[in-house]
Amino acid sequence: MLHINNDLINKLVKDDESIDDLQLNGIHLIQKKEGFRFGVDAVLLANFANVKKGNKVIDMCTGTGIIPFILAGKTKASSLTGIEVQREMVEMANRSIEVNGLNDRMSFICGDLTDSKLLKSMEKAEVVTVNPPYKLANSGIVNPNDKNAIARHEILCTLEDVIIAARVLLKDNGRFFMVHRPERLADIFELMRKHRIEPKRVRMVHPNTKREPNIVLIEGQRDGGRFLKWEAPLYVYKEDGGYSDEIEEIYGRRQ
Amino acid sequence: MLHINNDLINKLVKDDESIDDLQLNGIHLIQKKEGFRFGVDAVLLANFANVKKGNKVIDMCTGTGIIPFILAGKTKASSLTGIEVQREMVEMANRSIEVNGLNDRMSFICGDLTDSKLLKSMEKAEVVTVNPPYKLANSGIVNPNDKNAIARHEILCTLEDVIIAARVLLKDNGRFFMVHRPERLADIFELMRKHRIEPKRVRMVHPNTKREPNIVLIEGQRDGGRFLKWEAPLYVYKEDGGYSDEIEEIYGRRQ
Repeated sequence: MLHINNDLINKLVKDDESIDDLQLNGIHLIQKKEGFRFGVDAVLLANFANVKKGNKVIDMCTGTGIIPFILAGKTKASSLTGIEVQREMVEMANRSIEVNGLNDRMSFICGDLTDSKLLKSMEKAEVVTVNPPYKLANSGIVNPNDKNAIARHEILCTLEDVIIAARVLLKDNGRFFMVHRPERLADIFELMRKHRIEPKRVRMVHPNTKREPNIVLIEGQRDGGRFLKWEAPLYVYKEDGGYSDEIEEIYGRRQ
Repeated sequence: MLHINNDLINKLVKDDESIDDLQLNGIHLIQKKEGFRFGVDAVLLANFANVKKGNKVIDMCTGTGIIPFILAGKTKASSLTGIEVQREMVEMANRSIEVNGLNDRMSFICGDLTDSKLLKSMEKAEVVTVNPPYKLANSGIVNPNDKNAIARHEILCTLEDVIIAARVLLKDNGRFFMVHRPERLADIFELMRKHRIEPKRVRMVHPNTKREPNIVLIEGQRDGGRFLKWEAPLYVYKEDGGYSDEIEEIYGRRQ
């Protein structure tokens, strides 16, 4: 268990930021008090991803770095790198590394997923994860200068950009893990096939047993063979309105 | 309610056949006592398909004709045509028409879905349904002369043949309804997109709330716009092992 020194917090955390305990081997994350804070999707993806001892992991559209920080706490990945296009977020995520003393395993890079020169210069990874913008750029009212909009809408990168980038970053037979919205699943399968990341495993997340799924977790394999496994659904809430046992385990008892 | 005359049954039903009451406006179906008998998949598909008054419906890989017979009982379709490659099944399905006195609305054609000349000669339909062979021809041990194998494996028609045939048979914006296996869903979406039948609605069927889905129901639209709706799951069994209320309703109380 890591203990965070108050002086370190005072030095590294700004007034408009919070520092949150992830309840996972003492790992803490800096986030903006107002702004894009991590949600259930990122936590579910980090729990869906299989990372083996010694794996190199790259997380795209990493934001605060929530996914690599969870994976740093729960796996024996040898290195975890986050890529994020918003410089301010990268700077904040780098301070989270310092708070946690994880400089030997973690790093964040400011870059654009459509920058193929940058991607090709990076060391290939066994695992690529992504919680990308879900919404088409032309859906709803979007302010292109809004940082939340960049995280939620396909303004700076499309689903196809994400999948192309994953292919470049993955080693042969490397694994791709993505969280997305069920209504995009035909697009997702089509684009993964197009760029030869074969869909291998899907898990649907439902608010409860009576409702349609609102989150989908997908595993793909670079140049993998064709066989798609569907898992039992994950329900977020029980009938009485409380969190399901599985969600309680993911959030509170995973240590 | 239609009453079936015993003399008619003696005349039309052979010794190795049974005649089963579908519990649906008195409709009866002739099936082989030993051989491929209809299953839950066909019943679920017939209940998933939206058929409007006056619609022309074509059912591909129709077998005994179970799907058009259910739709004849529960909808106001103006005509229902089944296509089946096995001549013996077509002859039996035609006797089921006679038993039910449905000659004015129903017909069966013996033909191969890859026979594009035959398909192009047919009047276009608002609705095409199909419960196709699920398994790849090269999966498992298959006897190509076995009638059950023809119904279960992609020996005489592949998934792509089925989707190409649906496109030919459908009117502009016509609706396609298929039941299949979840592990083929990436293939299904990819091939539907390829042949411009856009996936519009999906419902997963699970044995119960704890298990992964084992049947998928898909609606597509010929040249439809991109938006995929996922429905709440259908569970076949309750926790106590009995049929769920929804299955009871589909099977027993749908009148």
